[in-house]
Amino acid sequence: ITPAAIIKKLTGLVAATFTPLTAEGEINLSVIGPYIDYLIEKQNVKSVFINGTTGEGCSLTVDERKQLAAAWCQHGKDKLEQVIVHVGCMSIKDSQELAQHAASIGADGIAVISPSYFKPVNADALRLFIKEVSTFAPDLPMYYYHIPSMTGVAFDAADVLNGIEQVIPSFQGVKYTGTDLRDLGQCVCYSQSHNWSVLFGVDEQLLGALVLGVHGAVGSTYNYLGCIVNKMLVAFDNGNHMQTRALFHHYLCSAGFDVSVNKQVMSEVSGLAMGPPRLPLLPCPVSKAQAIALKIKDFSQGH
Amino acid sequence: ITPAAIIKKLTGLVAATFTPLTAEGEINLSVIGPYIDYLIEKQNVKSVFINGTTGEGCSLTVDERKQLAAAWCQHGKDKLEQVIVHVGCMSIKDSQELAQHAASIGADGIAVISPSYFKPVNADALRLFIKEVSTFAPDLPMYYYHIPSMTGVAFDAADVLNGIEQVIPSFQGVKYTGTDLRDLGQCVCYSQSHNWSVLFGVDEQLLGALVLGVHGAVGSTYNYLGCIVNKMLVAFDNGNHMQTRALFHHYLCSAGFDVSVNKQVMSEVSGLAMGPPRLPLLPCPVSKAQAIALKIKDFSQGH
Amino acid sequence: ITPAAIIKKLTGLVAATFTPLTAEGEINLSVIGPYIDYLIEKQNVKSVFINGTTGEGCSLTVDERKQLAAAWCQHGKDKLEQVIVHVGCMSIKDSQELAQHAASIGADGIAVISPSYFKPVNADALRLFIKEVSTFAPDLPMYYYHIPSMTGVAFDAADVLNGIEQVIPSFQGVKYTGTDLRDLGQCVCYSQSHNWSVLFGVDEQLLGALVLGVHGAVGSTYNYLGCIVNKMLVAFDNGNHMQTRALFHHYLCSAGFDVSVNKQVMSEVSGLAMGPPRLPLLPCPVSKAQAIALKIKDFSQGH
Amino acid sequence: ITPAAIIKKLTGLVAATFTPLTAEGEINLSVIGPYIDYLIEKQNVKSVFINGTTGEGCSLTVDERKQLAAAWCQHGKDKLEQVIVHVGCMSIKDSQELAQHAASIGADGIAVISPSYFKPVNADALRLFIKEVSTFAPDLPMYYYHIPSMTGVAFDAADVLNGIEQVIPSFQGVKYTGTDLRDLGQCVCYSQSHNWSVLFGVDEQLLGALVLGVHGAVGSTYNYLGCIVNKMLVAFDNGNHMQTRALFHHYLCSAGFDVSVNKQVMSEVSGLAMGPPRLPLLPCPVSKAQAIALKIKDFSQGH
Repeated sequence: ITPAAIIKKLTGLVAATFTPLTAEGEINLSVIGPYIDYLIEKQNVKSVFINGTTGEGCSLTVDERKQLAAAWCQHGKDKLEQVIVHVGCMSIKDSQELAQHAASIGADGIAVISPSYFKPVNADALRLFIKEVSTFAPDLPMYYYHIPSMTGVAFDAADVLNGIEQVIPSFQGVKYTGTDLRDLGQCVCYSQSHNWSVLFGVDEQLLGALVLGVHGAVGSTYNYLGCIVNKMLVAFDNGNHMQTRALFHHYLCSAGFDVSVNKQVMSEVSGLAMGPPRLPLLPCPVSKAQAIALKIKDFSQGH
Repeated sequence: ITPAAIIKKLTGLVAATFTPLTAEGEINLSVIGPYIDYLIEKQNVKSVFINGTTGEGCSLTVDERKQLAAAWCQHGKDKLEQVIVHVGCMSIKDSQELAQHAASIGADGIAVISPSYFKPVNADALRLFIKEVSTFAPDLPMYYYHIPSMTGVAFDAADVLNGIEQVIPSFQGVKYTGTDLRDLGQCVCYSQSHNWSVLFGVDEQLLGALVLGVHGAVGSTYNYLGCIVNKMLVAFDNGNHMQTRALFHHYLCSAGFDVSVNKQVMSEVSGLAMGPPRLPLLPCPVSKAQAIALKIKDFSQGH
Repeated sequence: ITPAAIIKKLTGLVAATFTPLTAEGEINLSVIGPYIDYLIEKQNVKSVFINGTTGEGCSLTVDERKQLAAAWCQHGKDKLEQVIVHVGCMSIKDSQELAQHAASIGADGIAVISPSYFKPVNADALRLFIKEVSTFAPDLPMYYYHIPSMTGVAFDAADVLNGIEQVIPSFQGVKYTGTDLRDLGQCVCYSQSHNWSVLFGVDEQLLGALVLGVHGAVGSTYNYLGCIVNKMLVAFDNGNHMQTRALFHHYLCSAGFDVSVNKQVMSEVSGLAMGPPRLPLLPCPVSKAQAIALKIKDFSQGH
Repeated sequence: ITPAAIIKKLTGLVAATFTPLTAEGEINLSVIGPYIDYLIEKQNVKSVFINGTTGEGCSLTVDERKQLAAAWCQHGKDKLEQVIVHVGCMSIKDSQELAQHAASIGADGIAVISPSYFKPVNADALRLFIKEVSTFAPDLPMYYYHIPSMTGVAFDAADVLNGIEQVIPSFQGVKYTGTDLRDLGQCVCYSQSHNWSVLFGVDEQLLGALVLGVHGAVGSTYNYLGCIVNKMLVAFDNGNHMQTRALFHHYLCSAGFDVSVNKQVMSEVSGLAMGPPRLPLLPCPVSKAQAIALKIKDFSQGH
């Protein structure tokens, strides 16, 4: 039996989790247990993507990222469906170390962004980079995390996927955080023939991706609006365009759209202390987050 | 009775027409009559958007644009549902002259892009520009043609629309040729309360726009693939996601995506002599266009 | 005798002239005579570049541009050293018509920008465009006007120049309005072997271009600060780095840096009525221009 | 006595050093001793900037960066004038750790880039980031390393410098690796009143920066062309424009312009084994580097 035969396909809503920090800016592992319960019970969200952009992974040290990954896997065991650990770093050696660690703690998959200070010169170079990380966790599903707005790496994700199964046996899909729907459509087509997952990552454009056939979505707003978006997914599957648009419109009016805002909104909505973001991000004014949280409360009561 | 009361709402597929040129590069008005018959009879496309990007409007002189507009209105009378004339120019005086002319020949509406050499400093400046054009054709529906990839004018179309009804009584909607679905969604919302039309203009991303509720689409590929896309619109309205995606996928595989390629493909598919593009565009190799035309023929026979 | 043998090499400071408009926005030819006297007598600037970016050429009609060109040539005869007419347009037919007209009125040279709505796909396409304009004025020196910040046409000017003498016998140099000093350096090298002129067009970076060996500069601020900059050119030629930097620093503190501001500053400093800019540009607040004019007056009295 | 009173001002040519790797991709400390001797004896370059862009600092682990810094300080003692250690990382905690380490090993200064995955929202946020690093090495001169082409952080360096002396007592200047000469000029002005150093970092545009008054230059090509560039600096100081341009032109024709190429050229020219770059960079073809090395040899013999 090859690993691929027993892989759980990643689908549906996946929370890109925040990294709880104390007021002093240290990671706060004590929040993670209650965080998992909140996601499952209040938002009906059962998989997580940790140490990614929302989790400020690039602002953490390698050691902090290991501690967080271990805590999520430990507390999520038998509760969460899947824990995907983002292991992308500027240094390939750091990524390799994190990949190996993810395998050792029982993560369900790993993902990498392209390095962005030095940018791969083309899709071949990026595939090579991803491959050299995957060899440190050969049995873990590997996802490419495409996010050109942050990395500045602009070549098509479809070019990265093209032929990657021959180089990386454990490759399993893409977290697509971009707005080029043509490229996304090609990723969906290509992934179908390999039974990979395409997860969309631009929350505020989810509807345009759903219609192209993506298998799920990873995002920060699903931490606190997963419940609403899950309802929209049902309406969409039923072909009810009017209801889908109405729910999406209300969702759009209630969501914050950057890490600092979303992190504070999450604290307000969930009652869990996410703490401030880490520099270079600056904290969001509490009043701003409270105004958004109020809209969400009003809206939830109306449904 | 105000003009708005009797305005025909612009919906469905609209062909962004090519400008037929002779081999010597002069406009070829003799093609326009047969061109109209072809669109109606073979593609089931009944409205046109002329002198736009596909029509190389910015590469034509003011006098050529007038001759073309007159020919489309004359030949399209009693055949086409709507003839929309693009009157955007770098010089506002040229745009004003074209607007006045469009009114005099019985066009059904006018549209303007933002000037792009000198760019408006903000949405207010752009609204002022559009207003000063509309006053030369106050009874014609005015559409804002949003196309940031060509103009480099990047502020949101929703900001341009916001309050424009107070400045331009004849305003009637937007041709949205951009990929920011969040901005598009806001345009759709705003337009609904004024009964305006939002027409989408990025052919290869049409599906993502449909789901947001746009009222139609303007594009170059509808000149030769309108028939297929019309079928997709029906499947979509029926909530049949699988059939919609299948038709969209086949459409994507058969379409060219720049003016030069599409112009040559149109000649091959329709049998009408569109001629070469004008400098600075270079002609597309005939063999490339023939290969696309062959795929279209094969596909059409399969349906 | 070939025309090249008798060409006056374009060097030194060249004023990119404003287009005087009336309060109603019509071109105001009556200002041009006094304007020429002002440039010569007060600023020691003896050549002009008309209908360019500063002159809002792209916002004018073809007919207005002809009237302006005729007026500058007529009033400048026996006073100005050279009148260069910018004939760049989005439509090549308009550019050809303006080139032919420039030759008929005795202009000393013509220049073209790249068309920018439709962008040439590469340097070959742009050379072809320039060539097809030059054939309508084969005896006039032709300059390529490189201004990527406005046109969005980003390939190197050095690629455009490479081999252009074989395609365009009348080619005579480049107005380089860009910040890539490496590309500029290559243009200077290439031009030296053909005795062409390289004129720099980013006023606030002039010093960095001088050291590379450019032959002159075309800019809007030389309309009202030509006198100071001429002093700096002398200091530079004398190898006096300290004085050069001091003059450049004072120049930088006194100059406006967009067309609207500079146009109003020119009215204030010269006493000539330049009028407002044309839409889509908005007028500059008079108080802002007056504050700059005051600084210039103070500085001039100190020298 | 305050530290500022005894700071050695950083001036002249500074080599941005390569990081020697073994064929297996591990850091190769044994090269550093001979590397220092080569720089001093063959290139007349006496200061180094380590673990920066040329040194692939972002592709190294924190531990590797410490080992390298220690080796450069140890071998450079009594030989090099200054060893500046770049401590910029995506994670501020890593940067703080490296800053503290640099102080402990006797480095002469530290520098930081802006974090680039998460970008500071404005200059205030960036100053705050730099400050929080500097507090871990309060007695070491701190330089801001401005390199927008790599970081995507586009706000002016002059805005970062403005008032920074009140926030960071140890601030000592900027390594300016950008092409905006207006911003650079403002940095030079501001730095003069604080006796800071402005070091220019775009090798191929050095001449345009010299004329603005920068105090030195940090770059990769000075590793192998420092000798030539030092001659050019003398010619420039003597006000000999012709000789300066001639030397600069020959320099430009002999230099590689990306990290991979320059690293291989350095191996060829110096005979020291720099090894390959680390992923995501790909090695430069040896033949390409050898061709450049041959030109350099020919040129050196001609002088």
